[in-house]
Amino acid sequence: MKIAVDAMGGDYAPEEIIKGAIIAAEASPDVQIILVGQKEHMQKFLSGSLPKNISQYEASEVIAMDEHPANAVRKKKDSSIVVATRLVKQGEADAVVSAGSTGAQMAAALLGLGRIKGIERPAIATILPTPEGGKLILDVGANMDATPEQLCQYGLMGSIYAAKILGISNPRVGLLNVGGEEGKGNDLAQKAYQLLKASPINFIGNVEGRDVPYGRADVVVCEGFTGNILLKTAEGLAGVLFQQIKEKITSNMVRKLGALAVKPGLKEIAQMMDYAEYGGAPLLGVNGISIICHGSSKAKAITNAIRVAQECVQVRLIEQIRDDLPK
Amino acid sequence: MKIAVDAMGGDYAPEEIIKGAIIAAEASPDVQIILVGQKEHMQKFLSGSLPKNISQYEASEVIAMDEHPANAVRKKKDSSIVVATRLVKQGEADAVVSAGSTGAQMAAALLGLGRIKGIERPAIATILPTPEGGKLILDVGANMDATPEQLCQYGLMGSIYAAKILGISNPRVGLLNVGGEEGKGNDLAQKAYQLLKASPINFIGNVEGRDVPYGRADVVVCEGFTGNILLKTAEGLAGVLFQQIKEKITSNMVRKLGALAVKPGLKEIAQMMDYAEYGGAPLLGVNGISIICHGSSKAKAITNAIRVAQECVQVRLIEQIRDDLPK
Repeated sequence: MKIAVDAMGGDYAPEEIIKGAIIAAEASPDVQIILVGQKEHMQKFLSGSLPKNISQYEASEVIAMDEHPANAVRKKKDSSIVVATRLVKQGEADAVVSAGSTGAQMAAALLGLGRIKGIERPAIATILPTPEGGKLILDVGANMDATPEQLCQYGLMGSIYAAKILGISNPRVGLLNVGGEEGKGNDLAQKAYQLLKASPINFIGNVEGRDVPYGRADVVVCEGFTGNILLKTAEGLAGVLFQQIKEKITSNMVRKLGALAVKPGLKEIAQMMDYAEYGGAPLLGVNGISIICHGSSKAKAITNAIRVAQECVQVRLIEQIRDDLPK
Repeated sequence: MKIAVDAMGGDYAPEEIIKGAIIAAEASPDVQIILVGQKEHMQKFLSGSLPKNISQYEASEVIAMDEHPANAVRKKKDSSIVVATRLVKQGEADAVVSAGSTGAQMAAALLGLGRIKGIERPAIATILPTPEGGKLILDVGANMDATPEQLCQYGLMGSIYAAKILGISNPRVGLLNVGGEEGKGNDLAQKAYQLLKASPINFIGNVEGRDVPYGRADVVVCEGFTGNILLKTAEGLAGVLFQQIKEKITSNMVRKLGALAVKPGLKEIAQMMDYAEYGGAPLLGVNGISIICHGSSKAKAITNAIRVAQECVQVRLIEQIRDDLPK
């Protein structure tokens, strides 16, 4: 198996990307990791004894975070994300992993790999950590104007991913909505409800915003705008609360002593909430495996994203989605 | 000043509603509180010596949480929320407060009070507690299919409310969106951006989900579906995290001792995050003051909601909105 890693994408590229790739290569000696990027920039992080299953592939250009995604992908044909995706298209890699511009990665995948037949729009499926384990939310921002049919396709793809990759048998699929009862919500939600209800998945009906962090559905279906807001609000609130806790439990001597005792407990929660543990978010619906990482990914997140990519290849995710789609 | 309180609405009605009303009456002897509901059910919570400024007003019917709001309001003309709203319409009360069905309260307000001229749809404006103080989010569920013009009207009304009631001078108004830059988001967000930019308020551009809990805007404008998801996700996540903290910091003897020491600090955070501190959410855009309380409101939240209602009357909120709307 070969995984192409965009070494130039992300806030900490190429150093942390390369570090993460090396750890992944050491953990899986049978997996070939191809670092795609500017060799001159990668070189200094690749000195010393490297695992044999790490290689480099030159891509002379880089797409920056603030470039217009589709234009940049069309123009910069030798950029790391375009080249890494092309390796998948040409069968020289089985998956691509990137922490660069999400828009560019999506555009590269759509233009380079195309869509799975029967899927109108791909969705970014991300994992939200909950006390009941990681739950899948999709779409969190690939598609800004989804139709009811597309939401139903997200439900099908999400269900397959949750079963095959997250190991949840008969995953409970919920539709994100403003109320629990059938008939609630805007026109999109009402129509999507009916399609999901008629689909062959384990649809449990509407879930409200407050149900999501409790893990009351294994797969949460929503359109990309709302999903993005949900995900980032959760990120922001968790950040604020941990910041406040840190401040308030160390604001005097007595509390500081108490903080020492409870710190391991708080660490357990922080670890549970750590996005990096789950690695990357698959772009579901494109004809190949493309794993999107948070722009701020460090080595651990990259290593885990490469692991996710491997698992997707192992279970033949694309074929599974293709086979399970209504004919 | 007279405030009509729907004594029959909410999970803890009438007991907690009446308790909250009595505390409010004691705190403001010059404000007349009118408890609207079934006298036979209110009676047992009204024994003993009552403040002179508490009175009862009979309404023989109650609208349940699961009834179709508009139908119920049309049919049950003698229900507590319809009667309480009618008192405002007839000038016998200056504001109405309810913890009952939000949909029914909205329908009663729309049918009974009508809209402020120039406002197409009312919005529920709720307060999200942040370390930087309470911030206003609107709409959180009054209107499921907002237009760019309506979002712009929310910005105007929210700005006035934040200035007059929250005491924030020149409030920063942000548009909830999936990215910070102009041009981001779906069609609705892109068009609303332009209208808000051209409006006379202090528009600071887009804010992302993660900016909201940090309090980076004083007023966050969004359409009702997404606003509802944001609010409930924040509620749910805060609930999960506090539950986890409670569990993890008391999981053994050492941690339990530490927990005793840090407890006051955690309490300070819980208090900061407590929705009840802020009382109710105004329904902005209707021709009268209607304060919506959480269904699970207890006495404290009701007392605070009555205080909010008083403040809205004092600053002549409706006239302020009317005066500030573009002619």
